[in-house]
Amino acid sequence: DMKEAFPDISPIAYRPDAPADETLVFRHYNPSQQVMGRSMQEWLRFSVCYWHSFRATGLDPFGGPTITRSWDDGSDTLENAKRRMHAAFEFFAKLGNKYWTFHDRDIAPEGSSWQETNRNLDEMVELAAQLQKQHGIKLLWATCNLFSHPRYMNGAASNPDAHVFACAGAAVRKGLEVAHKLGAENFVFWGGREGFQTLLNTDLNKEMKHMANFFRMVVAYKEKIGFKGQLLIEPKPKEPTRHQYDYDAMTVIAFLKTHQLDKHFKLNIEPNHTMLAGHSYEHDVVMASAMGMLGSIDANTGSPDLGWDTDQFPMDVKAATMVMKTVIEQGGLQPGGLNFDAKVRRESTDPRDLFIGHVGAMDTMARGLKAAARLIQEGTLARAVQQRYSSYKSGLGHKISNGTATLEDCEAYVLKHGNPSVTSGQQEHYETIFNHYVHDLK
Amino acid sequence: DMKEAFPDISPIAYRPDAPADETLVFRHYNPSQQVMGRSMQEWLRFSVCYWHSFRATGLDPFGGPTITRSWDDGSDTLENAKRRMHAAFEFFAKLGNKYWTFHDRDIAPEGSSWQETNRNLDEMVELAAQLQKQHGIKLLWATCNLFSHPRYMNGAASNPDAHVFACAGAAVRKGLEVAHKLGAENFVFWGGREGFQTLLNTDLNKEMKHMANFFRMVVAYKEKIGFKGQLLIEPKPKEPTRHQYDYDAMTVIAFLKTHQLDKHFKLNIEPNHTMLAGHSYEHDVVMASAMGMLGSIDANTGSPDLGWDTDQFPMDVKAATMVMKTVIEQGGLQPGGLNFDAKVRRESTDPRDLFIGHVGAMDTMARGLKAAARLIQEGTLARAVQQRYSSYKSGLGHKISNGTATLEDCEAYVLKHGNPSVTSGQQEHYETIFNHYVHDLK
Amino acid sequence: DMKEAFPDISPIAYRPDAPADETLVFRHYNPSQQVMGRSMQEWLRFSVCYWHSFRATGLDPFGGPTITRSWDDGSDTLENAKRRMHAAFEFFAKLGNKYWTFHDRDIAPEGSSWQETNRNLDEMVELAAQLQKQHGIKLLWATCNLFSHPRYMNGAASNPDAHVFACAGAAVRKGLEVAHKLGAENFVFWGGREGFQTLLNTDLNKEMKHMANFFRMVVAYKEKIGFKGQLLIEPKPKEPTRHQYDYDAMTVIAFLKTHQLDKHFKLNIEPNHTMLAGHSYEHDVVMASAMGMLGSIDANTGSPDLGWDTDQFPMDVKAATMVMKTVIEQGGLQPGGLNFDAKVRRESTDPRDLFIGHVGAMDTMARGLKAAARLIQEGTLARAVQQRYSSYKSGLGHKISNGTATLEDCEAYVLKHGNPSVTSGQQEHYETIFNHYVHDLK
Amino acid sequence: DMKEAFPDISPIAYRPDAPADETLVFRHYNPSQQVMGRSMQEWLRFSVCYWHSFRATGLDPFGGPTITRSWDDGSDTLENAKRRMHAAFEFFAKLGNKYWTFHDRDIAPEGSSWQETNRNLDEMVELAAQLQKQHGIKLLWATCNLFSHPRYMNGAASNPDAHVFACAGAAVRKGLEVAHKLGAENFVFWGGREGFQTLLNTDLNKEMKHMANFFRMVVAYKEKIGFKGQLLIEPKPKEPTRHQYDYDAMTVIAFLKTHQLDKHFKLNIEPNHTMLAGHSYEHDVVMASAMGMLGSIDANTGSPDLGWDTDQFPMDVKAATMVMKTVIEQGGLQPGGLNFDAKVRRESTDPRDLFIGHVGAMDTMARGLKAAARLIQEGTLARAVQQRYSSYKSGLGHKISNGTATLEDCEAYVLKHGNPSVTSGQQEHYETIFNHYVHDLK
Repeated sequence: DMKEAFPDISPIAYRPDAPADETLVFRHYNPSQQVMGRSMQEWLRFSVCYWHSFRATGLDPFGGPTITRSWDDGSDTLENAKRRMHAAFEFFAKLGNKYWTFHDRDIAPEGSSWQETNRNLDEMVELAAQLQKQHGIKLLWATCNLFSHPRYMNGAASNPDAHVFACAGAAVRKGLEVAHKLGAENFVFWGGREGFQTLLNTDLNKEMKHMANFFRMVVAYKEKIGFKGQLLIEPKPKEPTRHQYDYDAMTVIAFLKTHQLDKHFKLNIEPNHTMLAGHSYEHDVVMASAMGMLGSIDANTGSPDLGWDTDQFPMDVKAATMVMKTVIEQGGLQPGGLNFDAKVRRESTDPRDLFIGHVGAMDTMARGLKAAARLIQEGTLARAVQQRYSSYKSGLGHKISNGTATLEDCEAYVLKHGNPSVTSGQQEHYETIFNHYVHDLK
Repeated sequence: DMKEAFPDISPIAYRPDAPADETLVFRHYNPSQQVMGRSMQEWLRFSVCYWHSFRATGLDPFGGPTITRSWDDGSDTLENAKRRMHAAFEFFAKLGNKYWTFHDRDIAPEGSSWQETNRNLDEMVELAAQLQKQHGIKLLWATCNLFSHPRYMNGAASNPDAHVFACAGAAVRKGLEVAHKLGAENFVFWGGREGFQTLLNTDLNKEMKHMANFFRMVVAYKEKIGFKGQLLIEPKPKEPTRHQYDYDAMTVIAFLKTHQLDKHFKLNIEPNHTMLAGHSYEHDVVMASAMGMLGSIDANTGSPDLGWDTDQFPMDVKAATMVMKTVIEQGGLQPGGLNFDAKVRRESTDPRDLFIGHVGAMDTMARGLKAAARLIQEGTLARAVQQRYSSYKSGLGHKISNGTATLEDCEAYVLKHGNPSVTSGQQEHYETIFNHYVHDLK
Repeated sequence: DMKEAFPDISPIAYRPDAPADETLVFRHYNPSQQVMGRSMQEWLRFSVCYWHSFRATGLDPFGGPTITRSWDDGSDTLENAKRRMHAAFEFFAKLGNKYWTFHDRDIAPEGSSWQETNRNLDEMVELAAQLQKQHGIKLLWATCNLFSHPRYMNGAASNPDAHVFACAGAAVRKGLEVAHKLGAENFVFWGGREGFQTLLNTDLNKEMKHMANFFRMVVAYKEKIGFKGQLLIEPKPKEPTRHQYDYDAMTVIAFLKTHQLDKHFKLNIEPNHTMLAGHSYEHDVVMASAMGMLGSIDANTGSPDLGWDTDQFPMDVKAATMVMKTVIEQGGLQPGGLNFDAKVRRESTDPRDLFIGHVGAMDTMARGLKAAARLIQEGTLARAVQQRYSSYKSGLGHKISNGTATLEDCEAYVLKHGNPSVTSGQQEHYETIFNHYVHDLK
Repeated sequence: DMKEAFPDISPIAYRPDAPADETLVFRHYNPSQQVMGRSMQEWLRFSVCYWHSFRATGLDPFGGPTITRSWDDGSDTLENAKRRMHAAFEFFAKLGNKYWTFHDRDIAPEGSSWQETNRNLDEMVELAAQLQKQHGIKLLWATCNLFSHPRYMNGAASNPDAHVFACAGAAVRKGLEVAHKLGAENFVFWGGREGFQTLLNTDLNKEMKHMANFFRMVVAYKEKIGFKGQLLIEPKPKEPTRHQYDYDAMTVIAFLKTHQLDKHFKLNIEPNHTMLAGHSYEHDVVMASAMGMLGSIDANTGSPDLGWDTDQFPMDVKAATMVMKTVIEQGGLQPGGLNFDAKVRRESTDPRDLFIGHVGAMDTMARGLKAAARLIQEGTLARAVQQRYSSYKSGLGHKISNGTATLEDCEAYVLKHGNPSVTSGQQEHYETIFNHYVHDLK
């Protein structure tokens, strides 16, 4: 039987009054505490990702691995993969998240043939099913890694070589089967190599058409096997490619609508990606929600002064409050959740850093949830916003709003009523109220 | 009668062998020279914009006006507006562009009432019609300025106040009427204030719905009066607002498709805006063209190290070659054109700088046209690209391409054929060939 | 006598328990409250700037003025300038800041001759002296506007024309005289046009040498008249020029050291500028302090997703805590202060918005001060950091630290002791502790 | 004996009239061709770097190795290292560059002890010396890799652990010895980990002081062994760390002057790094040259729309012309050179891509050299610039220039002469002339 992976770590407890230098306690996340009619756990639906937490080694473009784990001998054997999975579920159980996520290649080693690769995956999936049951953990989503293997260097579904496209298709068929088996509540596509490095060697139209056909095959297969999980696309503007087709929320929506795929997919928004696309942290979360397309969130952050993906743990309570405000306003994220697509820094080499990162982030999101709930319940901002648009409730405003006004109506109105008065937008007033909810209320 | 505005400037001549320090000659732009079956003039469809060239004063956020013109006394009178318009048409005639563009408020002063404003506009439109005829100049596009007046500070069609929306509607009704009268080949919408400064005071869904209704009114009125010009939306990510709803080409396409407006609009792409959205210079030109939505181009540039709109004259031949390659490949821009939405630097205070900027830019685009034509005619890159995707012509590739393949077909193929071989993307080879066409061929 | 400018606004009171939608109260800033041995007022040394708060009109590159004030008829007369100054001091008195700042041209209109300009300034300075005394307000710093007038379009001290350099010199002579008269505690140089738009027309060496000579003249004149204020340079990377010579803190330090001017100047750091230079918000504050060169702070913020100067009120408590931590650690900012180089948004057109912006920002900095003080007093982070570098206290580490070690010593040590063990950097642990101080402690 | 590594590649020939799709020929680089009194080879001093060209595997943060070479079995043995080095010198000989560069760890494998590591290095240095002699290749510079090994994750000379500092010192002692042995003309320091990920755990003053002491030890040891090569520091703003102390040229100069090290070091400027610091491509080359500190250039480029280091081959002739203009104006780069710190894209998997990248880049720089030389020889721009500053040749301008003017002199001048006239900066004129030299002249 298995040795404990984290012998020095006890299950993380809710201890709001712990001393300042204790960072292995929750001060705010209290899973069963009720907030606006649901438990914190139900609102937050925290998930730990397998890749960053159990496959990352600290390798970066300028340096080798820094992180070694007692349970991981670095080999590509099934034995090692199993030890790793036991460690992961021990981690989930001690941390207290109820969901996990993975790529196919995270949990099972690539074999020497396609057949062997699938057999490896099946064996690991069997173990995962057993550990899920044992620990009461569920699969938020699964995904296929269609970007790490050299075969995908020029793209997966957008590859100039149909043989590579076929590999991507074969992998996703298996991935959907496995997700179905493990009860995944969603299935994610992040097209890390679906884009281009240079327009000079690229046929954009062919590549985008092939991607659309790929997604149609996915929908057909999903329906065939009766998989009920939500399909999600995760936008990212660039990196590793110079330009990725799924640049941001609106770009993906344009693509889906162009190919009549929008009924079948929602978006998995990662704020670090949003920042890299030139938007504010919360922008794509809010925009996707407004478009009715927010499916799930990869809760992380970048540093705004950096131009690449750093996948840091989200530690900013103000940003968390904006995100949770949107989540509450759309009635929750289910079947999506808050997946920590975040990694400890490569300098954070201790196993306890892995806990601390998650704990700090969970507390940050919980603080945000509480602040957002209070803000929404008291209605201070909402009333002000509603008042701001009240002119659309009657008269010409109402006709504009319901689409029955004409340009001539507009002109007639203006000829009669002259110029409108100027109305302050009051940004500083709104910001000050928001700060009050973020900082002053417990 | 009018004094000449540019008495020291003769019509710009094509003199490819002029000495290096002469910058008031064309070395490459030779309007009637045939390139791939059309004259350069027909391919390039150069247009001069009224706002930057005849209304700009050099004012910037940190300093006052630097530019004064002999024909402009700075007053808001119709007399001054007319002197300005005569100067503009003298400029067009000497420069040799065949198109111009304007905002309603560029050519005629705002009056003390809506009625007077429209009368002012009518009077200036009459003069414009006469000068167009006299000089053989056509109107590439007109547009309404829905962002400068304080009434629009919180948006035009997306304003929280229906009264302001009405103003925007009234202005556009008049603008379409006027565009129709002057034979505009297109009509452009740039929503400079259609966006938000803070999400805290903003109802995204209301604002986007109102914008969509606004565009529907535009289509209805256009059809009513029989205006045949192409409607165009110009994306910009931000500035003056923190976030503009028309962020980039794909964002506008998402919006248009969401509201079933995509049949009625195309895009007017400005590369300086594209750069501000985090893309490469040519990205939105190429992407809009691939999506069948490229209507016209605002030919300018920014500096890649700056984060705001500088509207510089396009002086980079390599970038121009990429743009003109796309234009030729889609069969030309008509009824759109290359509109120089570019201004002389505020330090370039001489009237001759205004000519030099345009001349240098026209030569840059003409150099690009010649290089792109040669590249396309010789087919060097096109053959290589075609070869790169040849696997989609038969077998499984063909089924993927025509949408009849399934994920199971993909898996069967891979189980039979194993892993694909790795194929070089050859970026350096493509870049070197491209450089050869940009630099070595006359 | 003067009509009250803000008849509806009472002096802002400290009322920590005011309802959420009241934004004209301090919840945290309590001027006389003691924090680590000084009053909050002494630590924070708040200053209101004249330009944004009493000269801004809402003009931006895409639109005209939006802001009008009852006391300002828009004219360039001395009468108007005086009404404005009375309004400003009424504002200071009601807000409760003890310092103000101005540019020469903010307070007095440019005349038709240099002589008249100076007479205008003298007249306004007399009024300022009287109002300072009457209200107990002091001048944190004065500065000369060497960027707005068209004469400075190609630079002031770096202008290619010596005649323009002479204008800058003449203005600064008068500015120093006036600062001395009003008891300014500092004098600031922001070289908004000291840079270039294109390298092609620029002689870098000449321009930088002239700037250095300019600063030498300043030092000589300052000593001659016995002005004791601290001279400060304010870095900014770009805007309005493409490149500004005072790019960031380290660039200015390089310039000062190259020209042996570093004894005479310190830095006035503006975080919005720091962000535009690609650094994190607090970077130049921390770096300048580490270099012993932090003189004063222009307390404001930008939006990290924007590439131009927005001069927003600082509303982020976490960022404020980092800044105030640095300020406390260097023993305070005196004779510098926290100058709100911030403006209400152009959509915030009500006079009360001007108060709300300052109140929200003062509360933000006060929250930051309290959090930083608690963090420093408890020593939680400091102890951890000290421990992290403890190996430099003895042995080879000590020799390295005092500069007596050699490369051979290093090699000998490594040959004897082999490889070092890997030590976690614990970023997540530090971030979690920091969050605790920002959010949990009152 | 060794098998040929590139059996299909002949030495690259100068064939200006080769067909468009031949990319293994020089069209412009003709080593012995005279330009302004030197051969192209002497001006350009091309160098190939070992790390990107012979150690890169295509690994990136999202995918594994894509590049395999016939001569490299992937092992860390000395036999493999030797095969690699033979391949490298065959490459140099066929390409025709006369210089190379390397990190210590590029050419020799790390051993199990410090002693073994040094023995490995000695053995490889012996082979390098022999191959240098055999092929007539020289060492432009050597450097130590103080960033890849996990021991350096928290910094090398700025590490919180003195033991790690000692490792860095030991490595550099050996590196200088080896550089001396191989006749290196320079020695470079790039401090990839000298910076911080978070300010919270960092003592800036200690770290910068230790770095300064480190450089003092380097100078002492260099003088002790009589190594005559130029010491160089290579600025980079960020990546892999969030902030690197050597942010850009001016930051390094500030550091060097603060610690009186500026006599001993010059700068090795990499334009890709310059772009990441928010400057224009050529900025740090031009600025370092103006400050008398330009020692060598890492000739590469990034994509301006990307926020990380891509180390692409420089393919932009306009940018190359700006760089070579600076190089000619300072009288050449010797003992520095143009080192191609550039890598083939990870999708460019063929050995011929490695040649094509270098050939395309060498031709780009050669085109730039020819254009710059013609521009300088004809003096068109230089005369205009000189004229622009002519007011500093006499009168007050002369006194300003030689540092004898006072603020009072300035005022007296202005009171006498009034306001200066406005002089156009003529940016468009300069740009048009520059384009003419880049594009029209052969």
